[in-house]
Amino acid sequence: MPGYDWISFTTDYGLSDGFVAACHGVIARIAPAVRVIDVTHQVPPSDVSRGAAVLAQTVPHLPPAVHVAVVDPGVGTARRGVAIEAAQGLLVGPDNGLLPAAAEALGGIRGVVSLDDPEWFASPVSPTFHGRDIFAPVAARLATGTALYDAGAEVDPATLVRLPEPAVMVGEDWLEAEVTTVDRFGNVQLAAPGETLDRLGERVRIGGLHARRAVTFGDAPPGALVVYVDSADRVAIAINGGRAVVALGVAPGDLVHLTTA
Amino acid sequence: MPGYDWISFTTDYGLSDGFVAACHGVIARIAPAVRVIDVTHQVPPSDVSRGAAVLAQTVPHLPPAVHVAVVDPGVGTARRGVAIEAAQGLLVGPDNGLLPAAAEALGGIRGVVSLDDPEWFASPVSPTFHGRDIFAPVAARLATGTALYDAGAEVDPATLVRLPEPAVMVGEDWLEAEVTTVDRFGNVQLAAPGETLDRLGERVRIGGLHARRAVTFGDAPPGALVVYVDSADRVAIAINGGRAVVALGVAPGDLVHLTTA
Amino acid sequence: MPGYDWISFTTDYGLSDGFVAACHGVIARIAPAVRVIDVTHQVPPSDVSRGAAVLAQTVPHLPPAVHVAVVDPGVGTARRGVAIEAAQGLLVGPDNGLLPAAAEALGGIRGVVSLDDPEWFASPVSPTFHGRDIFAPVAARLATGTALYDAGAEVDPATLVRLPEPAVMVGEDWLEAEVTTVDRFGNVQLAAPGETLDRLGERVRIGGLHARRAVTFGDAPPGALVVYVDSADRVAIAINGGRAVVALGVAPGDLVHLTTA
Repeated sequence: MPGYDWISFTTDYGLSDGFVAACHGVIARIAPAVRVIDVTHQVPPSDVSRGAAVLAQTVPHLPPAVHVAVVDPGVGTARRGVAIEAAQGLLVGPDNGLLPAAAEALGGIRGVVSLDDPEWFASPVSPTFHGRDIFAPVAARLATGTALYDAGAEVDPATLVRLPEPAVMVGEDWLEAEVTTVDRFGNVQLAAPGETLDRLGERVRIGGLHARRAVTFGDAPPGALVVYVDSADRVAIAINGGRAVVALGVAPGDLVHLTTA
Repeated sequence: MPGYDWISFTTDYGLSDGFVAACHGVIARIAPAVRVIDVTHQVPPSDVSRGAAVLAQTVPHLPPAVHVAVVDPGVGTARRGVAIEAAQGLLVGPDNGLLPAAAEALGGIRGVVSLDDPEWFASPVSPTFHGRDIFAPVAARLATGTALYDAGAEVDPATLVRLPEPAVMVGEDWLEAEVTTVDRFGNVQLAAPGETLDRLGERVRIGGLHARRAVTFGDAPPGALVVYVDSADRVAIAINGGRAVVALGVAPGDLVHLTTA
Repeated sequence: MPGYDWISFTTDYGLSDGFVAACHGVIARIAPAVRVIDVTHQVPPSDVSRGAAVLAQTVPHLPPAVHVAVVDPGVGTARRGVAIEAAQGLLVGPDNGLLPAAAEALGGIRGVVSLDDPEWFASPVSPTFHGRDIFAPVAARLATGTALYDAGAEVDPATLVRLPEPAVMVGEDWLEAEVTTVDRFGNVQLAAPGETLDRLGERVRIGGLHARRAVTFGDAPPGALVVYVDSADRVAIAINGGRAVVALGVAPGDLVHLTTA
């Protein structure tokens, strides 16, 4: 197999400990020619849902790669490790819902392997650091071109753990959707696809607040709320020069209701 | 054109979202052999002045590169995107004052192009993420050796938006200057060039506080304020083993007055 | 000398300033083919002990490398800069206790050189930024294969500054040890080697709290304290789904006492 020139790497390990570097080191030892793109390591600890969202929204912009992701509160328990073949790339990580959305973003799932061959792991495997001892070594071996279906037993993709679909409801002149993420700028991204915004007029109410539809932040006066289609093609809410998350008082998982004003 | 082996990358995107990785991915797809040095992605959101300062102080130490920087509160509005040819390297980003100081640090501006050729962009361009869809693709193409003056119409460098020069005033035995940055250690950097410190005696007053001139932090007893020339050749204030910013109670943009005691 | 393909880089510089990037730039200029693995740059400012711990626990997982580390409250004073030859790799940094534990983790010290040859430095050397002007250039030159013993005068390894050994005391059914680090997940790592845990029974008391011995976090019910051997082979304390550091109220350097319940 030709393998991959790139590995992408997503975790909740943070950057203050040596965890991310240890995984980089493991990859460098097994696949020295491969280069690593860090997606983020600042996923809130154990927040599988947030990890799944950031991964799924980022992978379409990465080069062909093995995408290894570890947000893994169940590390060392009976939850499986898996490798997924997607139409455009491979994914490696725990089977806890972290990977399927990214696999869909990469063209859909072609096959799944359960990581059950210790030959592919570091030895001994730490029961609390599968990122270093299982997932990074597997990703590195896959990047060097070792065949995916040698990594373990093929399993039915239907058996993959999946997160619940985020709530999105649309009416004639309203839209209700779950908050997916809040970014560094305080912009609030909803699960609703960008096209659903067409149901609303130019003036929008969000709870008791007034907002206007816009293409970019600067289309509104400073301090005004804007509703727009963001760079991941989702409905999102921002404040020109401010932090919408503060004005709305919401967090990921909350429902936000928008109506034509 | 021979192109560049390196791209440097500076933003206010933070490291918690996938924004930086998406740009790395775009660069990797267009210019896979190029390597990226991340200057920082922790510029405070929309703080163009801080972004300009960190970029200008860092580029002299980087290898020949295309320097792409995005701190861009006006993303998607009428503000131009530009590519600047400096004596030692290229710069790419919004025309909002972010780039000129770095261009000067790279030997001065030789020419400027307005980024107005959609052929160089990703398609479609998100109105809120020009880093991913305009600036990263342009930087990557320039790094591969595509000619700068093919990227758009040449414009007069005099038309570039520039930030106001930070205030620096010097008297016979005093010095007053704006705070440029406060670093991780709480050291307070002033806009005044290092040589201006020669106007002051060994003992210095900063407001009501006593400080001494020093070469490095450890030249003063623990807890004492020191005034020194920092690694960017600016006058700076530190506390040996402490945080000068707390003692002084200042922030970037504030004026600090130093006199011989 | 054959040199090294990799440099690892550990500092307390943080990621908000351009300090780390300037060092990356210096390395890229001197040794463009070498690749850098960032261990962490979030060591708390001037916390040599924490820097030494993260470095020592990470280097065993890295490829053969020159490991440059800078946590250096005494920068610019009389403290030496050193390069250490370990059995498996080189280390470069200040002689303040930061490097010896990592050298031991790399198979032990073979020789030490005092960095006293200005030919190896950037010129002029900033008295407050030896990372950029001394340690990064020296590491880069060593990576290109320049002989270690050309970098300065050989000195007796016994003259290296060393941190005090962290306290570890073991009794028949008790264990008392210093907290080494608290990681991003709030897990509390003790200095005690993993094997010392064998002295305790299945039920453990930590001060007034009850804990159980476990292999991984999920072996206990949510909210329960677990004592386990962590991925660096140290005794550690966690809470399944929580932050043990909050329950225990400890910080690095504190002593923790465990007894069989």
